[in-house]
Amino acid sequence: MRNIGICGAGLIGASWAVGFANHGYTVLVYDANPEIVSNFFKVVDQLADDLEIFKKVDLKKLKSSIKICDNLEQICKDSLLIQESIVEDLDEKKKIFLEFEKYASVDTILASSSSYLLPSKISEKLKNKQRCIVAHPALPPHVVPFVEICPSSETSLEVIEKAKDIYKTAHYVPIVLKKEIEGFVLNRLQGALLNEAVRLHEEGYASIDDIDISLKHALGIRWAFLGPFEIMDLNAPGGIGDSFTRYRKGIKKLAQQQNSVPEYTDEYIKKLESEQRERLKLTDREERTKKRNKLIALVRKLKLEQGE
Amino acid sequence: MRNIGICGAGLIGASWAVGFANHGYTVLVYDANPEIVSNFFKVVDQLADDLEIFKKVDLKKLKSSIKICDNLEQICKDSLLIQESIVEDLDEKKKIFLEFEKYASVDTILASSSSYLLPSKISEKLKNKQRCIVAHPALPPHVVPFVEICPSSETSLEVIEKAKDIYKTAHYVPIVLKKEIEGFVLNRLQGALLNEAVRLHEEGYASIDDIDISLKHALGIRWAFLGPFEIMDLNAPGGIGDSFTRYRKGIKKLAQQQNSVPEYTDEYIKKLESEQRERLKLTDREERTKKRNKLIALVRKLKLEQGE
Repeated sequence: MRNIGICGAGLIGASWAVGFANHGYTVLVYDANPEIVSNFFKVVDQLADDLEIFKKVDLKKLKSSIKICDNLEQICKDSLLIQESIVEDLDEKKKIFLEFEKYASVDTILASSSSYLLPSKISEKLKNKQRCIVAHPALPPHVVPFVEICPSSETSLEVIEKAKDIYKTAHYVPIVLKKEIEGFVLNRLQGALLNEAVRLHEEGYASIDDIDISLKHALGIRWAFLGPFEIMDLNAPGGIGDSFTRYRKGIKKLAQQQNSVPEYTDEYIKKLESEQRERLKLTDREERTKKRNKLIALVRKLKLEQGE
Repeated sequence: MRNIGICGAGLIGASWAVGFANHGYTVLVYDANPEIVSNFFKVVDQLADDLEIFKKVDLKKLKSSIKICDNLEQICKDSLLIQESIVEDLDEKKKIFLEFEKYASVDTILASSSSYLLPSKISEKLKNKQRCIVAHPALPPHVVPFVEICPSSETSLEVIEKAKDIYKTAHYVPIVLKKEIEGFVLNRLQGALLNEAVRLHEEGYASIDDIDISLKHALGIRWAFLGPFEIMDLNAPGGIGDSFTRYRKGIKKLAQQQNSVPEYTDEYIKKLESEQRERLKLTDREERTKKRNKLIALVRKLKLEQGE
């Protein structure tokens, strides 16, 4: 049994399907919305294009490993894991997990792609909570090799290990949270940076253009291959302990100043929108998204070539 | 007059010297410590090595544009700009800026490489405050093409424009803060992320290894060529306004949870140090630093090739 069930055939579902099918899994896809289903393989074609940057893709073979199913039962029956990728709404996710439980064997792992919601909440109504996790990808999961697994306190260790193996086989780098927290690691790190970017802009210290430059022409170049704890190890001759001892006063002082909560009022969002439109056209969003995917693939390829 | 004075010949000073000399400036270097001076051109050789990734470097020509001076007066006399790169200590910086004022023409821009200190404090005792700025590079400035210019309220607009031109000519991408703030943009964004990374680790949600992976295998790949406001523009069909309207509730909720101030106690730093040493050797720090510089240069080269 090498089946992966995907529930929800939008961009995230399609991206997961390509990621799994590209590494030997048979992927069974279901979506209740016929319009999304009819568009599905067009999206798959586009996503497969990005993979060409790594190596030649046998598109026919890839697509033959992905099957659209008529009902939920079909994707549940013989699957190792079901990757729920529906809308980010707790009630909807709770409902669909109850459906999974109806049809899936007790050995099947039930994984939500939620970027924020707690697995204990999503699995609240289930009898077999031990096989439920959140497995949150980084957008878009067919080129970014990352998934964060968040178990609830009821998830079994065996399920965590099995899930790790499944994602590793599909060439993802899985991380595992030790206990659940909203936003997990990825969106908590991203949110901390985003909130500070908004504070700097809203309080008039810097333009959105200059803040973007600070990330993409400085911090981001390092962060493309080094994490914060690896970087701190290089910032003083004695390593990370030496670094934190030297710099803790400043880092703490910043933390004390960074605890206001941006309000994100309608007025502020309008201001952001209008400043953004002065420098970036909304009409080339699709083109910019394509370019983003291409650059992600190129940076990832460069890292692989360098053994990273 | 195409002279740049560099005060402080350590790693930052040497890195600036290479950056300026590589783009047509004559660089005059002074350091009060003879040991640092005697090591200076060895460091220059190493730094020039990283530049070979972009294009062949004429090392002899590069080095002939860098002159070690015997006293502070020599680097001040005919320089467009003095890049102060001494130790990060307010009193020391205040003292050296008074020295600059003694020897430099009133047209010479006085720029501090401080990563944190306010230009109004550094220039507090000076008569001619209008030509003082902080110009903070990203480590290491010979390969990272970034500088953030922070004026005080006394800095003249003319000086800001002149400084921007000087850094642009040396192929840096300068940003300009609209008013001064400790840590400027770069270290405030970095600090916000670092503090959240420490919260997640200290409170037992994730290992340092898994947090590093979240950055380097997911967030950082995007941030290598897109800033936070550019990314938000791609996260919903209607652009940045649509994105913030959809996600503000979650982003605000995270901000509310991210306002504790990590204490960075000796005990916690010891724990970090010991976990770090389980996965990374202190003895290969130099090798890892070299690899960091090489990868920064490679990512930057890739971006340039892609027109970014």
